[in-house]
Amino acid sequence: MSAVLEQTAGGEAKALVTYDTHPEKYAHWRLSFDGPVATLSMDVNEEKGLRPGYRLKLNSYDLGVDIELHDALQRIRFEHPEVKVVVLTSAKERMFCSGANIYMLGLSPHSWKVNFCKFTNETRNGIEDSSRHSGLRFLAAVNGAVAGGGYELALACDEILMIDDRSSAVSLPEVPLLGVLPGTGGLTRVTDKRKVRRDLADFFCTTTEGVRAERAKQWNLVDHVAKPQGWAQAVKEHVDRLTRASGRAGGKGIALTPLQRRIDDAGYHYEHVDARIDRAARTVTITVKGPAQAQPSGLDGIHAAGMAWWPLAMARELDDAILMLRTNDLEIGTWLLKTRGDAGAVLAVDKVLAANARDWFVNETIGMLRRTLARLDVSPRTIYAVVDQESCFAGTLAELALAADRSYMLHLPDDAAAAPRIVLSEANFGAYPMVNGWTRIQTRFCGEQAPVDAARKHVGEPLAAEAAAGLGLVTFTPDDLDWEDEVRIAIEERASQSPDALTGLEANLRFPVAETMETRIFGRLTAWQNWIFNRPNAVGEEGALKVFGKGAKAKFNWERV
Amino acid sequence: MSAVLEQTAGGEAKALVTYDTHPEKYAHWRLSFDGPVATLSMDVNEEKGLRPGYRLKLNSYDLGVDIELHDALQRIRFEHPEVKVVVLTSAKERMFCSGANIYMLGLSPHSWKVNFCKFTNETRNGIEDSSRHSGLRFLAAVNGAVAGGGYELALACDEILMIDDRSSAVSLPEVPLLGVLPGTGGLTRVTDKRKVRRDLADFFCTTTEGVRAERAKQWNLVDHVAKPQGWAQAVKEHVDRLTRASGRAGGKGIALTPLQRRIDDAGYHYEHVDARIDRAARTVTITVKGPAQAQPSGLDGIHAAGMAWWPLAMARELDDAILMLRTNDLEIGTWLLKTRGDAGAVLAVDKVLAANARDWFVNETIGMLRRTLARLDVSPRTIYAVVDQESCFAGTLAELALAADRSYMLHLPDDAAAAPRIVLSEANFGAYPMVNGWTRIQTRFCGEQAPVDAARKHVGEPLAAEAAAGLGLVTFTPDDLDWEDEVRIAIEERASQSPDALTGLEANLRFPVAETMETRIFGRLTAWQNWIFNRPNAVGEEGALKVFGKGAKAKFNWERV
Repeated sequence: MSAVLEQTAGGEAKALVTYDTHPEKYAHWRLSFDGPVATLSMDVNEEKGLRPGYRLKLNSYDLGVDIELHDALQRIRFEHPEVKVVVLTSAKERMFCSGANIYMLGLSPHSWKVNFCKFTNETRNGIEDSSRHSGLRFLAAVNGAVAGGGYELALACDEILMIDDRSSAVSLPEVPLLGVLPGTGGLTRVTDKRKVRRDLADFFCTTTEGVRAERAKQWNLVDHVAKPQGWAQAVKEHVDRLTRASGRAGGKGIALTPLQRRIDDAGYHYEHVDARIDRAARTVTITVKGPAQAQPSGLDGIHAAGMAWWPLAMARELDDAILMLRTNDLEIGTWLLKTRGDAGAVLAVDKVLAANARDWFVNETIGMLRRTLARLDVSPRTIYAVVDQESCFAGTLAELALAADRSYMLHLPDDAAAAPRIVLSEANFGAYPMVNGWTRIQTRFCGEQAPVDAARKHVGEPLAAEAAAGLGLVTFTPDDLDWEDEVRIAIEERASQSPDALTGLEANLRFPVAETMETRIFGRLTAWQNWIFNRPNAVGEEGALKVFGKGAKAKFNWERV
Repeated sequence: MSAVLEQTAGGEAKALVTYDTHPEKYAHWRLSFDGPVATLSMDVNEEKGLRPGYRLKLNSYDLGVDIELHDALQRIRFEHPEVKVVVLTSAKERMFCSGANIYMLGLSPHSWKVNFCKFTNETRNGIEDSSRHSGLRFLAAVNGAVAGGGYELALACDEILMIDDRSSAVSLPEVPLLGVLPGTGGLTRVTDKRKVRRDLADFFCTTTEGVRAERAKQWNLVDHVAKPQGWAQAVKEHVDRLTRASGRAGGKGIALTPLQRRIDDAGYHYEHVDARIDRAARTVTITVKGPAQAQPSGLDGIHAAGMAWWPLAMARELDDAILMLRTNDLEIGTWLLKTRGDAGAVLAVDKVLAANARDWFVNETIGMLRRTLARLDVSPRTIYAVVDQESCFAGTLAELALAADRSYMLHLPDDAAAAPRIVLSEANFGAYPMVNGWTRIQTRFCGEQAPVDAARKHVGEPLAAEAAAGLGLVTFTPDDLDWEDEVRIAIEERASQSPDALTGLEANLRFPVAETMETRIFGRLTAWQNWIFNRPNAVGEEGALKVFGKGAKAKFNWERV
């Protein structure tokens, strides 16, 4: 699981959080399968918090609980294509989930809280992503009280069934109880997804008691209610209906084999991805390699390759590298993206992906790529793409250059064989929408259509520096005399600037113009929550988050800002 | 002007910021008129900062400078309907504007910075509002260097003409120089309004040097450039073109007479608006009164009434009350909105407004109402509407109930003459769009059309509590037995909660689903900036904002969050 002590190659023990786990190791969830129905029962072991100092009472969660949830979703995606409906419920008596553990939040430094919330948000967005793209249907079977982050988890499901036992309530008590927001999507989903009337939402989010089933249904906080005696039957009926509504096709599952990852002082090393850290410079060079071997072109071969299929293997490794770096290497503020490999091989894979997108496994692979790139987009680190000799920013890998805050491309004479070239494929024009609903190339041009159309005319064409710059696909194109200095200085300058200002800058510039529920969660809601997480009214010695459960009342500075 | 010592009725001297001024009193701007062209020249007097401790060098600004700008815009709107084009320029040599004064920011508490930025944003949005709704065209004639907030001001104009003198540059140096964001619209307008390519924006916002005219035009940071020798001619040509493009009709201006405001210990008192503060309860009751006298129904009478015309007089008073409370009464966290008067009289005014909306003065009056209500929407205070006996939430005044976070309406038997009634008018369905582009009633229902249509069927109909609640127009309807206790408890509960959490909550719930450039500035950009404004990397003893100009380098905690 996680928070293990990893032995680095250098021999020192280093406490790292890792995101690997397996159902057999779950401490907090039970995952079971019954034909087209997967049931995920939350059964948090209060002794098994990821970090010391708190107990996970009342089915409350910390990052470790969410890592298991994320793993379970991956299992359902890849190992269980027969599943059409996922039921999220609780194995505890009269308690669905009480949300993020408050003592954990009170003990955690700001950076931990923010990283934890981000992963939680991504996992929940992933639920909706699988509903939208894979036809999976999620039913929150809320069989007891549900509060805070517990309700936010239910909100990510397609439908919420709530028990009407005259005592269980749904609540978002963060504001009145803890002086923070329901910040992992709650505030946004209540209005944007469930269209709860603004004033009712205001009341609901400022009362500690919450509301019980009937009123919750009336206000559209939940979809359905059922009495305890009819509960099992109600769950069954809704599951049956959702099963019929699901568009997910069956198939033979493919085992989610463990990632082969080597950790040493210099970073995280995988087969197709290498993350090499320069701690003095506070940079990491993430090199993504194209296929080293011939890749299957037909479905049989693809299924046979399974987790070893290059696009999936690469996406899983990149995803893991992003998570490792985000969680364990806070000071590594600049990520340099490089690629290596044969453009033709990547473009061939893109064609195979597009031609077979209706196959469940190919579809899930595209989904893995989509979510991995989306994770990159919201990673609070500067991202530079470095398009150097031997690079391979082609098709799917060109998305990395488009995801970057800026890019440097070596300018050699166009006819030089060694001149790096960017090649777009159709994948860059729709296969991997960002969470703002736009492609990265649309986003790059702030939604202007003309430059997107101009670029699309060059699909498949290797573009050297001048041509790529002419189409607006790269930022700077130093020649080989200037290359080293210019790139080095750009990296040093960036690394010297305020990490907070850069995070704020990037969070704004990466998501111009277009907004969706997801960007509103990552942008608007998260930014307000981060502000509150820094305020003495929440985290000061007498702040609401700090004094919770200690019998004392929070002391507020009453100034409104 | 402002920062005056006001003598309260109780006899104590109290340092209040006020927003009243007059061109004759301007210390920082020169406002001149030449037929259809108004010229606003920035000429900041460095000795006349609003607060002690800093000098307004290099045409930098503080709240006092912005108060004058806001006043000048109001003069152009109401006193000079003949103006079609406003030229914003500088009276200094080679310096258009260097942005918000950094020493002022370094000295100011968080709440001051945030309130200052909000007013600055509102004033700039007001420029765009007048462009959109009044046909005024704004030309930023950038005749020297322009940095930070100076460029953000230019960005609010319709077009930017920049001098190409081989030295003047445009820059947003906040991130590299100060460790904060270009937070008064800059980041958002660069992408959303000017569609500057994402990676170029990234570079532009992280370099202190900025870019000079030619490149600025190439990147669309400005629209036009002109050499010094051709400057006057270029300004004239662009002004002539914009004058022809302006849709503003002429007319005889109406003097913007000073507001009659009485300040005492209990608050701010005007003819149609009364803001009565209860400091112990940390609430203010803002009572808005309908017309006390017969109002003109024809244009001649309306123009003759001028500033005394009820809808305009009321809006100006309410606007001033909001600004006074926001700036001077930070601890007054709950605003209770009440109304008094004759619903019929308000509805008659609504009809006159709608019938004469094409008249310049009526149009400007509607604009004043629109901007005042928009100011209310982004005010960081809890807003409850209290619909009690003798209330008058009709038409335009019903917008106050719709702007509230929630509302309490007294439930008496429907046939009781004293039962309060809400009356909608067509004005509630389009006259006063919020900055999210939606009406308040659309916003209330998170964009769902059916409840909006249902409500619209009852336009003109006095709705007692049950009917109003049935249509979803009010939140709670206690009867007269419960009324006092229920309202009192609701106010007390709210006032006991974390001011920061409430601000974050309201900033999210008031703007569900729909986003525009303006909401992205107030929501996303502002929230990130507020977060940064709380971080030691900016405001700590060795933070970038604190050490600026002291010769020392900022010391950062390098952790990325």
